[in-house]
Amino acid sequence: MNLATTRGAWGFAEAVEGCLRHGVTAISPWRDQVEAIGLAEAARIVTANGLRVTGFCRGGMFPAETADGRQKNIDDNFRAIDEAAALGADCLVLVVGGLPGSSKDIAAARGMVADGIAAILPHARASGVPLAIEPLHPMYAADRACVNTLDQALDLCEQLGEGVGVAIDVYHVWWDPNLAAAIARAGHMNRILAHHICDWLVPTTDLLLDRGMMGDGVIDLKAVRAMIEATGYSGPQEVEIFSRDNWWKRPGDEVVRTCVERFQKVSR
Amino acid sequence: MNLATTRGAWGFAEAVEGCLRHGVTAISPWRDQVEAIGLAEAARIVTANGLRVTGFCRGGMFPAETADGRQKNIDDNFRAIDEAAALGADCLVLVVGGLPGSSKDIAAARGMVADGIAAILPHARASGVPLAIEPLHPMYAADRACVNTLDQALDLCEQLGEGVGVAIDVYHVWWDPNLAAAIARAGHMNRILAHHICDWLVPTTDLLLDRGMMGDGVIDLKAVRAMIEATGYSGPQEVEIFSRDNWWKRPGDEVVRTCVERFQKVSR
Repeated sequence: MNLATTRGAWGFAEAVEGCLRHGVTAISPWRDQVEAIGLAEAARIVTANGLRVTGFCRGGMFPAETADGRQKNIDDNFRAIDEAAALGADCLVLVVGGLPGSSKDIAAARGMVADGIAAILPHARASGVPLAIEPLHPMYAADRACVNTLDQALDLCEQLGEGVGVAIDVYHVWWDPNLAAAIARAGHMNRILAHHICDWLVPTTDLLLDRGMMGDGVIDLKAVRAMIEATGYSGPQEVEIFSRDNWWKRPGDEVVRTCVERFQKVSR
Repeated sequence: MNLATTRGAWGFAEAVEGCLRHGVTAISPWRDQVEAIGLAEAARIVTANGLRVTGFCRGGMFPAETADGRQKNIDDNFRAIDEAAALGADCLVLVVGGLPGSSKDIAAARGMVADGIAAILPHARASGVPLAIEPLHPMYAADRACVNTLDQALDLCEQLGEGVGVAIDVYHVWWDPNLAAAIARAGHMNRILAHHICDWLVPTTDLLLDRGMMGDGVIDLKAVRAMIEATGYSGPQEVEIFSRDNWWKRPGDEVVRTCVERFQKVSR
């Protein structure tokens, strides 16, 4: 369970209790949720309950207009790596950032992303925290992430070497005409660090906060899962749903129960 | 001037008059606008004013759940070709369609698109109407067009042979990490039939109807223009802005005047 999914109802501690009530023993928390309860207490709860932390959300956001701004972003990523290590997270998810300031130069932004990851990678390796580049849907290219296809993320992985892989979120990649080949490539490179699920609603009423529950949209979750598992990946599927006007308004228990039911029905 | 841009203020005849007042002598009308005034009258206005029709919007929408539904879509495209020919349009723009009904099989939808274009291509060739496949932004993959990158459109062109090319709309392709190479490929294949411009706003508040005026967003229009013109393409740039809450609410003369000014400033 990515704890963004239950953000509307629960903070970190409540979410853990709620997940455990429904048999969910793996979580992926966000930095603000951990900060709210305190890193030490969050780590204690994780250990005390034997939870798996499938990812920590999130690092990234590397581009900035000035060298000083980029260094501040790198410093923040160092702290995110330390927090991920303290939680024993499987990976630190990177949402890499978009165009800085008033820039229209997306190639330059992409260069800043490569430079930023290269700058934090030695510390990530030393800390035992794999970095998971999450290619985001092209509709986020301007303001959230200028890495927009799985192949582009894999090119970055090849460039950067060991210690960095990809988080494959169906919401971001389902449309890609080259998806099957790109997933196979990710598998051959042994770079798949996370598999996120939700659904694409028709119509989608908000670019960021209108993701759907699995089964309510058009993504063939079983087909994508089959592609990913054909590579040998056997990790969990992580449910990550941003849904301001629907799921974030419901009780947390209803959200988690529905996630479990739908996972069984349309993605397992 | 794509007449979607002035849709809020003007029908076909008013739009032609308005464009001419501002020195714009090339238009790209929509089928509903031509139908409203009548095809014969629209063609008369085009001829009487010596207008260039840079494109006719639009054919496509091929996928359907049944063979009968797909045949109806093909029949409608035959009529669109005839209308484009009557107007002397440079091309018929194809927005190819998304997932039919409750289907989650985007590969199947893409096959229906290829089959549909193949079915209408002989008539398009005989009518002297080039077909312009417009790859649409991936955020439209489900409900408007399952051709989502320029490379994917060019693969279709290679498969289908002569008489079919691409419409390159900056709004749909600006984010593509492979854009420069794909545009060069389109040029080598001699398949560039149209070049549409507008801008990507940050934030974008509606997936369909919140396109920006050139200069108000993040697209490097001069850079994309340079890529396209480097291939030898010397055709017009066509301004196509869907803007329900902004430009569609303004007087047509203000819209066209602004388009001309911004074109000179940020895209020429």
